[in-house]
Amino acid sequence: MIRISIDAMGGDHGPGVVIPALMAVAVRRPDIRFTIYGREEAVRPELAKYPKLVDKSEFIHSEVAVKMDEKPSQALRHGRWKSSMWMAIEAVKSGKSEACVSAGNTGALMAMSKFCLRTMATIDRPAIAAIWPTLRGESVVLDVGATIGADAHQLVDFAILGTGMARSVFGMERPTVGLLNVGVEEVKGQEEVKDAGRMLREANMTSMDYRGFVEGDDIGKGTVDVVVTEGFSGNIALKTAEGTARQIASYLRAAMGRTLMARIGYVFAKGAFDRLREKMDVSRSNGGVFLGLNGIVVKSHGGADSEGFAAAVELAYDMVRNRLLDRIEADLDLFHARNPQVQAQASTKSDAEAGEENQEM
Amino acid sequence: MIRISIDAMGGDHGPGVVIPALMAVAVRRPDIRFTIYGREEAVRPELAKYPKLVDKSEFIHSEVAVKMDEKPSQALRHGRWKSSMWMAIEAVKSGKSEACVSAGNTGALMAMSKFCLRTMATIDRPAIAAIWPTLRGESVVLDVGATIGADAHQLVDFAILGTGMARSVFGMERPTVGLLNVGVEEVKGQEEVKDAGRMLREANMTSMDYRGFVEGDDIGKGTVDVVVTEGFSGNIALKTAEGTARQIASYLRAAMGRTLMARIGYVFAKGAFDRLREKMDVSRSNGGVFLGLNGIVVKSHGGADSEGFAAAVELAYDMVRNRLLDRIEADLDLFHARNPQVQAQASTKSDAEAGEENQEM
Repeated sequence: MIRISIDAMGGDHGPGVVIPALMAVAVRRPDIRFTIYGREEAVRPELAKYPKLVDKSEFIHSEVAVKMDEKPSQALRHGRWKSSMWMAIEAVKSGKSEACVSAGNTGALMAMSKFCLRTMATIDRPAIAAIWPTLRGESVVLDVGATIGADAHQLVDFAILGTGMARSVFGMERPTVGLLNVGVEEVKGQEEVKDAGRMLREANMTSMDYRGFVEGDDIGKGTVDVVVTEGFSGNIALKTAEGTARQIASYLRAAMGRTLMARIGYVFAKGAFDRLREKMDVSRSNGGVFLGLNGIVVKSHGGADSEGFAAAVELAYDMVRNRLLDRIEADLDLFHARNPQVQAQASTKSDAEAGEENQEM
Repeated sequence: MIRISIDAMGGDHGPGVVIPALMAVAVRRPDIRFTIYGREEAVRPELAKYPKLVDKSEFIHSEVAVKMDEKPSQALRHGRWKSSMWMAIEAVKSGKSEACVSAGNTGALMAMSKFCLRTMATIDRPAIAAIWPTLRGESVVLDVGATIGADAHQLVDFAILGTGMARSVFGMERPTVGLLNVGVEEVKGQEEVKDAGRMLREANMTSMDYRGFVEGDDIGKGTVDVVVTEGFSGNIALKTAEGTARQIASYLRAAMGRTLMARIGYVFAKGAFDRLREKMDVSRSNGGVFLGLNGIVVKSHGGADSEGFAAAVELAYDMVRNRLLDRIEADLDLFHARNPQVQAQASTKSDAEAGEENQEM
């Protein structure tokens, strides 16, 4: 049995999208159980439509729904203890659930998750990991916007976190890992990226196949399974790729509608276009995963439809079933046992840098 | 008459691509004249095929051809004074030509350009600007890899440089300008980006319509005419977009070949696909422009074909004809006259930071 706590009030559509998504997942994953948090008058009517879902879930009323445009500090002030978002996270902390899924405000979700779950013992800062469709399948890319800037130790942490996720989600034994940089030569790039590269190479971990630097165009190629970068460049890479995909889709639509011949061609090739659209569809690999916390939190896109939200819930389910946190903890222990000086440095850093944190996505 | 100096030895294909490109440009721009630098035995046979080009150009033999994989420091050591790359840049310095075009090694070209032409009086660091196809037309994006990191003053410089380029290349009176960030709210992002935003807003320049922060997906939308960022994130954005475009093109090819119906559809829609390919073709907006130097240097893609190299030469031509450097100098003077404290700070910074520079692309 795997228990997931759900913030039903998040996202642009709230319970109207969340509840049908849970029903779909309940059918596909019979051993899943939900604890659903939200405002009674909004959730109950939706839930009433799915009696089979009612059997597999517990509903708990919450007073407050965090708004999509609320600032993290505001959300924490208004929503701590009594919002559906907070209560869903707290269920992970108390052990009532094994992971939490919300389509709510990313900044608020990260602020509450950090406040409630705290970062893992040797981790300074959490990261948000995205699953990125590539020509070779899928890759994990992190950090896509939890914090701006990262020193070498934090990049190494991200590499370990991302490796754990690739192992849990893709079922890989030893994922390949690359550090995002502006050139593949050792001499180029930021000092912290170079230092992180040296540390990863020296660590020579059994769970991770460190391959050196990769560039922006390597992400889509799928050159490595895990792409590691700090949150500013990671967020810009993610959004630039999304923008480019939308731009090309728009060119394609315009090209296919312009002439009679093109429109005829479109009719014949419609099946192919549908498959292409599916391939480019973000909802199929929906969900930013918060890594580095004492618990699993998955952020679904705010605009996701039911299939998108279901994908985020299934991602959480897979990570719980494949013991993501245990894998990460084992790798962190192993790394720090062999590199005791890193642990000491990381611990002294965490206080000074705690104030600088910031969340975006 | 506009005179352009050409490094004929750069790029993956050398004179075999460069010389036909010059012929094509000479036909389309009758008032252009070339000074072509390269190894005699490689260039003369190509040139002999185009007698009309011979009439419009001067050929000067150079001993050394900079290799595509040479490190900038190596290239400077071997190639200063006697390489085709150096001689083409030096022609700009001596006034023999008004702009230089090379498809050679980016790092070497930037190192030689800085060494030979020097940065403009109030500019700390040069930037590489790319022309980015968008849903609304084209935008200028900079820096895409001249230097890593930039402080607020350098970001302001980049905004002024990019504005000058948009005015010269797109013929705009007052281009819109945005700073690349990870959120559109004023509270988010790096300190230097916030400070640059404040300075641009306060400067309220007549040549520039500063619109605030933009995100990665705004680049492809064409939300602003000039997107300003530092070289690490700019390079990652550019390469990620290129990678995503290639990824989708590959999906599309696969989708169109998979079934008989799709192949029939492809035959009908072939014209539309060709137009789409043209739209996605980088060679049509080929050329990274080095800005902030006392001279115009355009870097063509190393893998560009003749049409691509021709586009880079025409870009150089347009910038000369539309007096890019005069526009930039006037804007810099205006900005610094109204913000004297910035000039003072910039000058004290330039020495300390000169050692940190680095080039990638």
